[in-house]
Amino acid sequence: MKLPTLEYGDLLEHRLGPGRGLDPARLRGDLQERFASALLGFRERRDRGELGFLDLPTDASLARQVVEVADSFAQWFEELVVVGIGGSSLGTRALAEGLLGGHWNELDDEARDHFPRLHFLDNPDPDTTAALLDRLDLRRTLFNVVSKSGGTVETIAQLQIIEERLRAAVGEEAVRGHLLFTTDPERGDLRRLADAMQVPALPVPSNVGGRFSVLSPVGLLAAATVGIEVDRLLAGAAAMADRCLRDELVENPAGILATLLHASDRDMGRSVHVFMPYSDRLRATALWFQQLWAESLGKRPGTGGSLEASSAGVGPTPVAALGAVDQHSLLQLLMDGPDDKVVLFARIRRRRDDLAIPGLHLEAPSFGRVAGHTLGGLLDIELRATREALRRVGRPSLTLELDTLDEESLGATLMLCQIATVLAGELYGVNPLDQPGVELSKTLTAEFLASGSETREGGHPSAVDRAPWTV
Amino acid sequence: MKLPTLEYGDLLEHRLGPGRGLDPARLRGDLQERFASALLGFRERRDRGELGFLDLPTDASLARQVVEVADSFAQWFEELVVVGIGGSSLGTRALAEGLLGGHWNELDDEARDHFPRLHFLDNPDPDTTAALLDRLDLRRTLFNVVSKSGGTVETIAQLQIIEERLRAAVGEEAVRGHLLFTTDPERGDLRRLADAMQVPALPVPSNVGGRFSVLSPVGLLAAATVGIEVDRLLAGAAAMADRCLRDELVENPAGILATLLHASDRDMGRSVHVFMPYSDRLRATALWFQQLWAESLGKRPGTGGSLEASSAGVGPTPVAALGAVDQHSLLQLLMDGPDDKVVLFARIRRRRDDLAIPGLHLEAPSFGRVAGHTLGGLLDIELRATREALRRVGRPSLTLELDTLDEESLGATLMLCQIATVLAGELYGVNPLDQPGVELSKTLTAEFLASGSETREGGHPSAVDRAPWTV
Repeated sequence: MKLPTLEYGDLLEHRLGPGRGLDPARLRGDLQERFASALLGFRERRDRGELGFLDLPTDASLARQVVEVADSFAQWFEELVVVGIGGSSLGTRALAEGLLGGHWNELDDEARDHFPRLHFLDNPDPDTTAALLDRLDLRRTLFNVVSKSGGTVETIAQLQIIEERLRAAVGEEAVRGHLLFTTDPERGDLRRLADAMQVPALPVPSNVGGRFSVLSPVGLLAAATVGIEVDRLLAGAAAMADRCLRDELVENPAGILATLLHASDRDMGRSVHVFMPYSDRLRATALWFQQLWAESLGKRPGTGGSLEASSAGVGPTPVAALGAVDQHSLLQLLMDGPDDKVVLFARIRRRRDDLAIPGLHLEAPSFGRVAGHTLGGLLDIELRATREALRRVGRPSLTLELDTLDEESLGATLMLCQIATVLAGELYGVNPLDQPGVELSKTLTAEFLASGSETREGGHPSAVDRAPWTV
Repeated sequence: MKLPTLEYGDLLEHRLGPGRGLDPARLRGDLQERFASALLGFRERRDRGELGFLDLPTDASLARQVVEVADSFAQWFEELVVVGIGGSSLGTRALAEGLLGGHWNELDDEARDHFPRLHFLDNPDPDTTAALLDRLDLRRTLFNVVSKSGGTVETIAQLQIIEERLRAAVGEEAVRGHLLFTTDPERGDLRRLADAMQVPALPVPSNVGGRFSVLSPVGLLAAATVGIEVDRLLAGAAAMADRCLRDELVENPAGILATLLHASDRDMGRSVHVFMPYSDRLRATALWFQQLWAESLGKRPGTGGSLEASSAGVGPTPVAALGAVDQHSLLQLLMDGPDDKVVLFARIRRRRDDLAIPGLHLEAPSFGRVAGHTLGGLLDIELRATREALRRVGRPSLTLELDTLDEESLGATLMLCQIATVLAGELYGVNPLDQPGVELSKTLTAEFLASGSETREGGHPSAVDRAPWTV
C-alpha cells in the first residue's frame, strides 16, 4: 500500500527566502518540542477514551455490522438518500465524490454495477428538498437519516416531510422499511423513535464526534451500500494512523501538517489556510476538511469557550478551493494580497483514466501549446506552476501527494487530517472536540420557533431599530 | 419592481457594543468622504470607458443579438455545454442555479418547457470531462466555448477533445454546427478559428473583463438558451445601477457594501468577508462573488501589481459559505475564533414554493419544536438566530434581502456586487480591473508544457531538493 505523503519544503526558509519561510533547524528544535507536547496531550486524550475515531479502522465488528446492513438493503433499493447536515453529510460526500466521481447518478444500472444511486439532503431548503423528493420513486428509495444527537433540527424537519410522503407512496405499514437511522447508541429522539417504530438504527460510538465520524457507520453505511470497499478504506486509515503516532516530528505527517500550519499562523501571521486539491473528486474532501479545521480550532483557548463578547479567540480560517478552477478566482489574492496565507495543495500522481489532447489547429499558438499533453498532465503542470509561482514571491505551500486516488489513499488522507486536527487543537491550546460557540444560535432558533412569528421577534432587542439601517 | 435591500445595522456600534461596531456618525462624516472620493474615481473610470459592465443592461442591440442566436439554437439541441473557466463560468452558473435551481437537468422535457439541459465544463479534470462527454448524445449537443482572450489554456485543451469527439459523432463537416464561441470581438485564437471554421462567435465587449461579464453574452447566451428572461435580468440590473450611483453614502447600497466592508478591514482588522446566503440557489452566486472580490481587490496598491517578493499586498479574504449548512461547519469559528470577520448574509423573504413540516411524533421534543413551521420558515429563523447570536458576541454582519428570487432581483444583486467591487478597489487603492498576479503561474505553465516532462522540470531550482522535505 502506497500511503499519501506530505511535502513541506516550500514552507522553509531556504526555498522561500530569509524571513519568509521557517528555519529548517527548528524542525529538530522548538517545533519538535511543541509537537512532542501536543503529542503528549493527544495520547492523554486517547488514553481517556476521547478519540473514538482512532479505533474505528480496527473495529472489525462494527465494520462487519455496517456491511451486513448495507448488503441487506442495497438489493432492494435503486436510490439511497443520506439525510443529515454538517458532520453527518460532509464525510460521506467526501467518500462518494472521491471514489465514485461526480457523475455516479447519471450512470446506467450496468455502469453502476446495479448499486443504488446516491443523493444528499442536507440544507433544509424547500427548493432542493422538494425537487429531490418530487422526482424519486419513493417505493424504490431508502432514506438513511443521520444525526449523532438524534435531534438535529434541520434533519428532523426533513424526516417529517419524508415520512409523510412515504406514507402516501407505500402505506403507513411499509414506511419503516424505507428508513434507516444512524444515531447515538442509546440516547436521543431518533434512537427512541427507532425503537418505537422498529426502524433499524446503526450506532455512532459515543466517543466519536460528528466531524470525526466519517469512518464510523455515519460514512460507511452509504459507502458500503454503493459498493465502496470499506475494508480498504479502513486499512488505509489504519496504516496512516500508525505513521501519525510517531514521536519524531519529521517522521510524522500529521505532526508536520499541524505543527507547520500552527507555526505559520502563530509565528508568521499566516492564519488563512487554503486547501486546494487539483481534482474534482477531492472537492468534497476540501469542504470536509474546512469544517474539521474550522469547528475544531476556532475557539477561546483554555475556557472551552464562552458566550461573552471577547476578541480573544484563536483559530485559522480554512478556505476550501479547487485547482485549476481557483487559479481563475483566488490566485491573484494568493500572489499579491496580504501575506497571511498558506496553501495546502493536493496532487494525484497517477490517474486511472486520462484524456489525450489531440492537437488540432496547431497553427494557433494556444492550441499548439497543449498538444501532445493529456488533460491530467495539464492539470498537474498547472499545480506545479502555481506552487512555483507562489514560491518565487515568497508565499508558502505544502503538497499532499496521493499516488493514486483509491479507497486506501482516501482513507489514509481522512485519518491524516483528523489526527492533525487534534494535534493542532493541542498546539492552539483549545479543545478540538467541542463546539460551544454554536449553542447560542441553536437556543435562539428554538426560541424563535416557539414564538412562531416575525411579530414576536419584533419585540426582540435586535429587531427594534432594524429598519432605519437599510438601503 | 422590488429591488434587493442591504441592512447594515448589525455592523454599527449601538448594536454591537462600544468599540465593536462602527460609529453611525461616521456614515455622514469620514466614511461619506471616503465614499465620495471612491465614487469620483469610479466616475473617472466610467468616463474613460473602462466600466463596460455598466452599459450592458441598456445595450438593447447586444441583448437582442444574444437572444436571436439563442433562439436559433435552442430548438435544435437537447444539451448545452458551457465550456469555460473562472469568469467564463461562474456568472453563468450563478444565473442558472439561481433561476433554474440545482435539479434542472433531472427534469423531464415538459417540466423544462423543452428547453435544453445545461452542463458546465470548467476544470480540465479528465474524470469529469470524460464522464460528461461519454454520456451526452453529441448529435444533440451544443458547446458554447467561452474565453475572453480566446486562448485560455484549460478551455482550449477541452475544445480540442470536444472537437475530436464531435468529428467522430457527427462527421467533420457538421462539427461547426455544434460550436458557438463567445470571445473578444477582434482578437485571439478563438476569434480567428471562428472566422476560419465559420463558427458563430458572440462578442465580449473589449471593456468588459471576465469577472464582470455575467450580463454580457458570456452569461446571457446560456441564460437565454435555457429560457431565462434576459430582459428582466437586465432591467433589474439597470434599476440597481441607478441606485448605486447616488452621491449620498446612506442612499447607495453599493457604497454601503464597499465602504463598510473596507472600513471593517482597514479600521478594525476584519479582513475575512464571509458571504453566506440562506438558499441553495444562491450558492453559485456566493462563489461568483468570491472570485469578484478576491481577484479585484487582492493587489499591491499603487503599482498595479508586481512580481517581486513583498508583503505589502492588500485585499480581504472572501469566503463563500451557505446557510444553514455552514452553521454546522464555520459558525463555531465565526462565534469564538478571532474577531477578524464580517458576515454578509443573503435572505429571501418570500419563496414561491415552500414545504410544510407536518408535525409527526409530537411527543419527541425535537419533532414538536418544528411542527407547524415550513422548511423555508425554519431556514429563515436559522438566519435570524445566527445573525442575532453573532450580534450578541459583538460580531458584525450585513444582510442582503431579496423580496423574492427572480430575474430582476438576481440581476440587481449581480450589478450591486459589481459596482461595490469597483468602489472597493478605489477604497483599497488598487485597480479592480486587472489581475497581474496570475501571469507568473501562466508563464510557468507554458514553460512546463514546452519542456514537457518531469525530468526537464527536475533541472528547475524548486525541484532540486524537493525529496528530503517529504514525510
